[in-house]
Amino acid sequence: MRHARFSIVDRAGLHCLLVITRRFSAKKRPCVLVSHQWSGQSDAERKKAEQLAQLGYVGFAIDIYGKGVRGGLLDDNSKLIQPFLDDRAMLRRRILAALAAAQRRPMVAPDRIGAIGYCFGGLCVLDLARSAAPGVKGVVSFHGVFHPPNLGEQAPITAKVLMLHGYDDPLATPEHVLAIAREFTEAKADWQLHAYGHTTHAFTASGVNLPERGLVYNATADRRSWIAMKNFFEEVLA
Amino acid sequence: MRHARFSIVDRAGLHCLLVITRRFSAKKRPCVLVSHQWSGQSDAERKKAEQLAQLGYVGFAIDIYGKGVRGGLLDDNSKLIQPFLDDRAMLRRRILAALAAAQRRPMVAPDRIGAIGYCFGGLCVLDLARSAAPGVKGVVSFHGVFHPPNLGEQAPITAKVLMLHGYDDPLATPEHVLAIAREFTEAKADWQLHAYGHTTHAFTASGVNLPERGLVYNATADRRSWIAMKNFFEEVLA
Repeated sequence: MRHARFSIVDRAGLHCLLVITRRFSAKKRPCVLVSHQWSGQSDAERKKAEQLAQLGYVGFAIDIYGKGVRGGLLDDNSKLIQPFLDDRAMLRRRILAALAAAQRRPMVAPDRIGAIGYCFGGLCVLDLARSAAPGVKGVVSFHGVFHPPNLGEQAPITAKVLMLHGYDDPLATPEHVLAIAREFTEAKADWQLHAYGHTTHAFTASGVNLPERGLVYNATADRRSWIAMKNFFEEVLA
Repeated sequence: MRHARFSIVDRAGLHCLLVITRRFSAKKRPCVLVSHQWSGQSDAERKKAEQLAQLGYVGFAIDIYGKGVRGGLLDDNSKLIQPFLDDRAMLRRRILAALAAAQRRPMVAPDRIGAIGYCFGGLCVLDLARSAAPGVKGVVSFHGVFHPPNLGEQAPITAKVLMLHGYDDPLATPEHVLAIAREFTEAKADWQLHAYGHTTHAFTASGVNLPERGLVYNATADRRSWIAMKNFFEEVLA
């Protein structure tokens, strides 16, 4: 088993990290993008990309913000995230550029792409699904936020969608759940939403324990959601 | 691999079918009750009990209605189901009698009990969780209905709860989902709800295709829900 890492800076300013396990071979593999939370790409996403590579995928940690643009996980990162929440067309261009960078890699099967994302990254991969980009078979949001992009008429969503959701997440309320269920049903998506009781935002963020802000690591939900993701990719990327 | 079946009639009028695979041995195994839909126990539930036995559990198909009380799956079975919807205390007594019958079997580990149920059977296993009966580690509702029992103060729910739900189920609407999420959160249950888009009631009922009644078999949701159940019991009955 070997790991290799590549840094890529493309014209959209993206800095992508690619991790691949196993011997190099001519055989193209399905690839899973990993989209970061509001503080930008960190070791957490790179570790997820490695874990995906250990499952046999090309793990591809993407970077929406751009090289070096980073905040602390528990800092106020509003300045980093807000431009993308205000301009969802820009967000879509960035994630599509990351997709294209992945699809250009010689070891990647360009028609077998998945994506996962955390918090803001959940929003990003849901926007990737909303883009109806060819080759994207499935996306998984972990404690993602659900705000609709309001970019005009929605094309039918072709990627399968799995949302892994803490029911007590203050950033994704029951009303947001109802709204995204309606939105994805109307967009004809094959969607699933797994709601976990007594679970807040950031339930996969090891070590975080800020109940007053609705940010609490939850080992049970972390484990269950990873199993759900594995099953999902076995279905959609096989 | 061997199968054995036992019929049991106890004082509550229950007729229980037990299926066990593998050689008989002195080692006690975790047991999963299978609770039937509104037409009463049928080959479908017995087959599920066998599939559970193949997974290494004692599969125990229970009978809430009583021996020989049966309807057709697509008939109007209101006369069978309504007495139990009207008298949830009676329903609770019946499911607790089935639990006790299972716990008395020599090959059953009485403190490692799970339960699954379909439609009305989903309601039954949720009521089993609400009973806070000792030994019940987890229950799984497949397209179950969510009406609260209104039996007075709810003790903390100790069984883990997994609800596998078709989001377009006309018998379990988004409002019902919000209500049971609130109920189980207040009861301190470890609960999960997996909602499947474009999926109706009866999504596990092979061959059923009555969209005008909201009853449609869905092979994808059937497969996903069974995988979710397997993972759940690996967690709670291990």
